[in-house]
Amino acid sequence: MCELLGMECNVPTDIVFSFSGLALRGGAKGPHADGWGLALYDGNAVRSFLEPFAAAKSPLASYVRANPIKTLLAIAHVRKKTRGEVSLANTHPFTRELWGRNWTFAHNGTVKKLDRLALGRFQPIGNTDSEYAFCALLAALQKKFSSYPKSTRALWQAVADISTKIGSKGTFNFLLGDGTHLYARCATKLAYVIRKAPFCQATLADDDVCVNFAEVTTPNDRVAVVATVPLTRDEQWTIGIPGQLWVFRGGALRATL
Amino acid sequence: MCELLGMECNVPTDIVFSFSGLALRGGAKGPHADGWGLALYDGNAVRSFLEPFAAAKSPLASYVRANPIKTLLAIAHVRKKTRGEVSLANTHPFTRELWGRNWTFAHNGTVKKLDRLALGRFQPIGNTDSEYAFCALLAALQKKFSSYPKSTRALWQAVADISTKIGSKGTFNFLLGDGTHLYARCATKLAYVIRKAPFCQATLADDDVCVNFAEVTTPNDRVAVVATVPLTRDEQWTIGIPGQLWVFRGGALRATL
Repeated sequence: MCELLGMECNVPTDIVFSFSGLALRGGAKGPHADGWGLALYDGNAVRSFLEPFAAAKSPLASYVRANPIKTLLAIAHVRKKTRGEVSLANTHPFTRELWGRNWTFAHNGTVKKLDRLALGRFQPIGNTDSEYAFCALLAALQKKFSSYPKSTRALWQAVADISTKIGSKGTFNFLLGDGTHLYARCATKLAYVIRKAPFCQATLADDDVCVNFAEVTTPNDRVAVVATVPLTRDEQWTIGIPGQLWVFRGGALRATL
Repeated sequence: MCELLGMECNVPTDIVFSFSGLALRGGAKGPHADGWGLALYDGNAVRSFLEPFAAAKSPLASYVRANPIKTLLAIAHVRKKTRGEVSLANTHPFTRELWGRNWTFAHNGTVKKLDRLALGRFQPIGNTDSEYAFCALLAALQKKFSSYPKSTRALWQAVADISTKIGSKGTFNFLLGDGTHLYARCATKLAYVIRKAPFCQATLADDDVCVNFAEVTTPNDRVAVVATVPLTRDEQWTIGIPGQLWVFRGGALRATL
C-alpha cells in the first residue's frame, strides 16, 4: 500500500508543508520506503520529481522542501510496493499526454485481472497494476471523447464511470490530474480538507511541525488538499466513502460522483 | 538557438562534468537563458529536470551537479527561445511514450510550415516548432512500425529518413533517446567525442574546470558525448556534416546515416 497527496488551488501555492508530512511517511514514520514522486503542474504541462527509494532519506525530497515551487495542481505519492519491483519505471505518479495536456496519476491499492481492459494507444513502461490501470483509464477516455470535452461534467462522469469499472477489480484509491482538475477516488481510504479564510494554524499529525496559514495566505485563497490519511491534527478533514469520486477545481469541491 | 548535450555509455555514468559545461552556457557564458532541461534514463523510463529559466542561476541545476545520478543515456538542453514563449510546456527535452518506452527529444534550430505533417496520436502541449516536430517524428515512426522493431537498423534508417523530411523545413539539429539508443542529427552544428581507455584529462572550454577521467573510470568504460559545440579544449571531437544522423549504443557510434 502507498500514500497519496494531492493539492488543487485557486492561486499558486507551494505544497511544502503537506509534502513534508507525506515525506515523513516515506520511510521514516511509515513503511513506504520503495519510492516517492511529486508532480507539479504549470498549465497543461507537468514536471515530476521521482526517486525509487525512501523520501525520508532523499536529498532530492529535501531540495524540494527547501526550494518550494508554487503550483495550482500537484500530486504526490510515497510507495510501498505490492506489485512490480522497485524501479523508476514503477514509481508514481505516472504521466501521459492526451489531448495536448499531461495527465498524471498516482494509485493506492491493488487491482487484478486488468488484462481484459483495452489499452488503446497507451502502453505501460513498467510492470505495476497501477500504471496498467492508468493506461486503461486514458484509453477509455480517448475512446469516448475525440478531444478534451467542452462539457467538463461529461468528462467528470466518464472518469467516475471508468473508475467504477476498474475499481471492481480490486482496491482503486487514486489521484488523477488533467492540468485543470484534480480527481480523487476513494476505494478504502481518502480524506480532504479545504483551506480557506479564516485561516488558522495546522500541525502535522506525524511531526511537531506547524504552520499558521493566516500568515502565508490572502483572504481569497482556497486550497484543497487530499490525502490517504489526514495529514494534520487540528483541521476538519472530510473522510471519503468507498466508491466516491471527488472533483476539485479552483480550490473547491465541484462534484462528488 | 539552443545548445544540446547528450551522453550514451556502456556503464552507468554521471553527466556532471559535461552538464556543468552546458549549464555555464545557460545564461552565464552564453545567451541561452530561457530554460534548461536534463533527461536521465533508467531502462525505458526517464526522469527529467526542467526549468523555464537560466541554468546558470538555477538552484535545481546546482542540485543536479552536487548530487550526480548515474545513467546509461541522458539528454540535456539549454534554451534561447526562437518560437514559443518561456514556459514549462516549451522547455526541452520533451517526452512521450511510444511502444512502452519513453522517447525524449531536444532540438536546436527552427523548422517552419510543419502543419502539413501528420501528428497521429501525439499532440503538442506547448507551442514550439520543436515539440511539433517531435510529435510528427513519433507519429511517422508509429505509422511505419506497430511495435519497437526487432531490426534496430530498420528503426535507425526510419529515424534518418523522417528527420531528412522534417529537416527540409528548416534547421533540425536534434538529440533523440529511446531508452536504448541516442540519435544525434546534425543540420548545422553538432560534435561528438568517445571517451575510452586510455583515459586522460579534459578541461571545459568555457571554464577552468578539468577532470582526469583515468581516475574515475575503469578500462572497459566507453562514453559517447554529443554537444552543439565541443565542450572541452583538450579532447578530439568529431564535427558533424549537415544532414548526418549518428546512432550511439553502448558508448560507441553504431551508424552514420
